[in-house]
Amino acid sequence: MAKVRLYLEEPLGEGQSVSLTREQAHYLFGVMRLAPGDGLAVFDGASGEYAATVKEAGKRGGVLHIAERTAPLALPPDLWLLFAPIKKERTDFIVEKAAEMGVRRVLPVATDFTNAGRVNRARLQAHAVEAAEQCGGTFVPEVGELRPLGRVLDDWPRERRLMFCDEALAGGPADLPENRGPWAVLVGPEGGFSEAERARLHAAPFAHCVSLGPRILRADTAAVAALTLWQTRLGDW
Amino acid sequence: MAKVRLYLEEPLGEGQSVSLTREQAHYLFGVMRLAPGDGLAVFDGASGEYAATVKEAGKRGGVLHIAERTAPLALPPDLWLLFAPIKKERTDFIVEKAAEMGVRRVLPVATDFTNAGRVNRARLQAHAVEAAEQCGGTFVPEVGELRPLGRVLDDWPRERRLMFCDEALAGGPADLPENRGPWAVLVGPEGGFSEAERARLHAAPFAHCVSLGPRILRADTAAVAALTLWQTRLGDW
Repeated sequence: MAKVRLYLEEPLGEGQSVSLTREQAHYLFGVMRLAPGDGLAVFDGASGEYAATVKEAGKRGGVLHIAERTAPLALPPDLWLLFAPIKKERTDFIVEKAAEMGVRRVLPVATDFTNAGRVNRARLQAHAVEAAEQCGGTFVPEVGELRPLGRVLDDWPRERRLMFCDEALAGGPADLPENRGPWAVLVGPEGGFSEAERARLHAAPFAHCVSLGPRILRADTAAVAALTLWQTRLGDW
Repeated sequence: MAKVRLYLEEPLGEGQSVSLTREQAHYLFGVMRLAPGDGLAVFDGASGEYAATVKEAGKRGGVLHIAERTAPLALPPDLWLLFAPIKKERTDFIVEKAAEMGVRRVLPVATDFTNAGRVNRARLQAHAVEAAEQCGGTFVPEVGELRPLGRVLDDWPRERRLMFCDEALAGGPADLPENRGPWAVLVGPEGGFSEAERARLHAAPFAHCVSLGPRILRADTAAVAALTLWQTRLGDW
């Protein structure tokens, strides 16, 4: 039912021919069963979506012809998602959800209660690409390297506001300022933030604390809920 | 770090002794490594949370002593979640998320574009129990049998309002009426609703349509986003 969509890393333009990697050829011809002459949609994350046609199809490669541009780039709001990596599958879900919900960058941060020592940035980036392909997006959020939260806060860009979700906070979500500039959303790991982290966040002039309700949410649920709150109040919903 | 929590189906009271099933014994003594004398929290979904102690621990069973009640029942708002079952893993996620986000009932509905012919109600109910155990809840939403959406709408209780998420709708989320009575939230399958379903829903006097933003969301993402919208506007957040 759904049209095949493929993200291509190189800048696209009408009339181009594009060579496919082995993985792309496997996906288009092995999995999706496209054949020469078949159409698909492609996007480069920077200039929009294009109609494309299969010119050559092989086991290890192939060539696409890029025809007309069919949609402009739909850039999400200037929003970052900061999250503490959790179990592998749920970390994958957080990145996928971030791409669907509309963020520019996804930044894994190590907190005092984070129990994942490292993340596979390339695998997470591939999940962001796949989510954009499947949700009809023309933009792919950039996944950053895992960095300690403290270091990220040390280098915080002063014009960017931070919505931080504190599960220890009782009561309704605080009012967010109607600031249409750059923002970030931070959700904690399963065990929440440490006292030192909470103190630092509550004292930071750029940070705004919100509650995600009276029940404890898993980190992946919290990410979607927090992005929903932000998108409906300050974003493009 | 987290305290062990166990849902018990029978009505609990202070001073009782409770026999464990083989599965419960395996979880407490095999997986969580509890031993006689160890403490845990138990809840029955109806009367709150209790402190309990292991009296007997065996491979195939065991006995708990129920001590004092430590928390009252925290009942979520009178909200149902209606969703169209999708791939197995994502259907499990939707039920888990519903339990975390706070709903009373979870009702799988077969829509014109649903491609799951049946659901395993018992497995989904077990996911709801597990989510309540892990998110600190004292209530477990009831998972219903899969029914056709048309039949569910035929029998719709007239005092219950329905927030329905129409991905074909452009623009911001519609204003929901400030109605504090019973509600339900309906999210569609991956392919959205059919024209006939959309026409019927838009015409229903109890239904209110909202948009979930300009990007296409997977069904599990849409469930969390829709419940967040409802909880922040009309629920207990």
